[in-house]
Amino acid sequence: MSVRIGVIGLGLIGGSLLRALHANGHDATGYDADPTTRLAATSAGLRVAHTLDHWRADVTVLAVPLPALPAVLDGLGDYDGLLTDVVSVKRPVRDLLAGRRYVGGHPMTGKESSGFAHSDADLFGHQVWALCLEGDTDLGDWLDLARLFTGLGARVVPVGADAHDAAVAAVSHVPHLLAGALVHAATDPLQRTLAAGSYRDGTRVAVTRPELVAAMAGGNADAVREALDRVLDSLREARAALDGPDPQAAVRDWFTPAWHTRRAWPVRPGPAQTVVVDRTALLALGAEGGWVHTVEDDRHITVMRPQLRVP
Amino acid sequence: MSVRIGVIGLGLIGGSLLRALHANGHDATGYDADPTTRLAATSAGLRVAHTLDHWRADVTVLAVPLPALPAVLDGLGDYDGLLTDVVSVKRPVRDLLAGRRYVGGHPMTGKESSGFAHSDADLFGHQVWALCLEGDTDLGDWLDLARLFTGLGARVVPVGADAHDAAVAAVSHVPHLLAGALVHAATDPLQRTLAAGSYRDGTRVAVTRPELVAAMAGGNADAVREALDRVLDSLREARAALDGPDPQAAVRDWFTPAWHTRRAWPVRPGPAQTVVVDRTALLALGAEGGWVHTVEDDRHITVMRPQLRVP
Repeated sequence: MSVRIGVIGLGLIGGSLLRALHANGHDATGYDADPTTRLAATSAGLRVAHTLDHWRADVTVLAVPLPALPAVLDGLGDYDGLLTDVVSVKRPVRDLLAGRRYVGGHPMTGKESSGFAHSDADLFGHQVWALCLEGDTDLGDWLDLARLFTGLGARVVPVGADAHDAAVAAVSHVPHLLAGALVHAATDPLQRTLAAGSYRDGTRVAVTRPELVAAMAGGNADAVREALDRVLDSLREARAALDGPDPQAAVRDWFTPAWHTRRAWPVRPGPAQTVVVDRTALLALGAEGGWVHTVEDDRHITVMRPQLRVP
Repeated sequence: MSVRIGVIGLGLIGGSLLRALHANGHDATGYDADPTTRLAATSAGLRVAHTLDHWRADVTVLAVPLPALPAVLDGLGDYDGLLTDVVSVKRPVRDLLAGRRYVGGHPMTGKESSGFAHSDADLFGHQVWALCLEGDTDLGDWLDLARLFTGLGARVVPVGADAHDAAVAAVSHVPHLLAGALVHAATDPLQRTLAAGSYRDGTRVAVTRPELVAAMAGGNADAVREALDRVLDSLREARAALDGPDPQAAVRDWFTPAWHTRRAWPVRPGPAQTVVVDRTALLALGAEGGWVHTVEDDRHITVMRPQLRVP
């Protein structure tokens, strides 16, 4: 491949991506505003640019947080290659990059630790990479990125920015709020000493830096509100179950469907199918929980959907 | 030690306890109503009784679920030794065993998997074992059990049944309800495919068997209601933060205290102190999040409290 790929921002995600691209033989160059991070990446054997001036790349992955994006775009001047990003909320980035040649992305992976020091070339294998397909997205650009990310082992899920933001509100942003509320509601010393496994896991993401939680939940406020209201409705049902004449039976009935649903997660891949690329079919694939496994050529992709459970 | 210890019920907790007692050289005998489990325990080199008739033990640990307790007590006939249990809610057991020589217990440890096959002699090391100290508890009996469990590496926390049930409602039972609600609120295929680490951990205990969740939450309904209401209050604050003019700043302000609190957990042990045994001091120790580390003799124990953070 003679495609030149650039990665701007070498934290956990950008650093891991540059490592993965390098390990897979791509022509990849990184950049970070912090000289120490640049030095660390260079020492790790990666190619690093020392300025954004005269930035040359066919594809540039913007791997910086949302608040840092405007400055990076300024720094890129009249760069006119393909842009993608890794921000966990897609609508604000779509608005910010309107008019640019851009496809939004969001690798659904990470660690509690951040920074280049924790980056890992294997971060993306078997992990989901949401890739935004809007009405005005160039299908060729979308496929080029899908080819790149599936080549690193990722499951590329086609999705619109609105649907993405609604889904991650429920499965990522609201869990951070629940973790925070659990911590807020159990602060006395006896509780903290008796707390064990269910507290540990239920509150794990409460160690996420408050700025990140604020950017996720606050930057996706409409969708988070809706998802939080669904959780609140469900908790009110649980509350009503406790209030009834037979709390044990009522709690069991309330909980059992969740038990079934959670036991069937994570989703297991069904059989691979090779299909002709089509914008409508791609969006339907994502809505069904499916993903692109391989980009075969400009017209054919191999896809997978979640395995249906035997009833 | 010539004290004869019996363990009735050889599931995960009872089986692990019998293994730990055996490994520590105690005179310990187990029993399980299921012949297959008895055989498995015998094959593991443990001593197992094949009937409860003529049960002889100075201390008997009832390691069966609450619904199975009445039948076991029937089977024990006129047994008059010391009884303790491992049920995760203490008030119903206290009521059931009223008039017996009994000290309630609750080892705060476990695994997602249950049954003797998953039992482990090391399950109790550095884990909390709540041990109930009521107004009518014999202090000598309490100390004998504290000596036994601290000898297996556990941190024995003195606590009344009411205070225990209120605390575990917040740190154990309510987390199960939150996990269930998170699952209930994210069932569509796209959400399930995009779900990653924060969903995985926030919903982990939703794979707990519904009967167990019902027994915990439904069997402790008053305390769970109170703890759940505190969580609901906190989530309504988060909801209000999302509704305000600056959701990002408001979410950050709401989340930050939880971030500090969770980063200071698990509690770190402060210095050991040897003190004279006293009922009031023991309960104060538990209320401060402290625990018995060693029982030195009938009058002296070594205790630890959570390390205070440097301000």
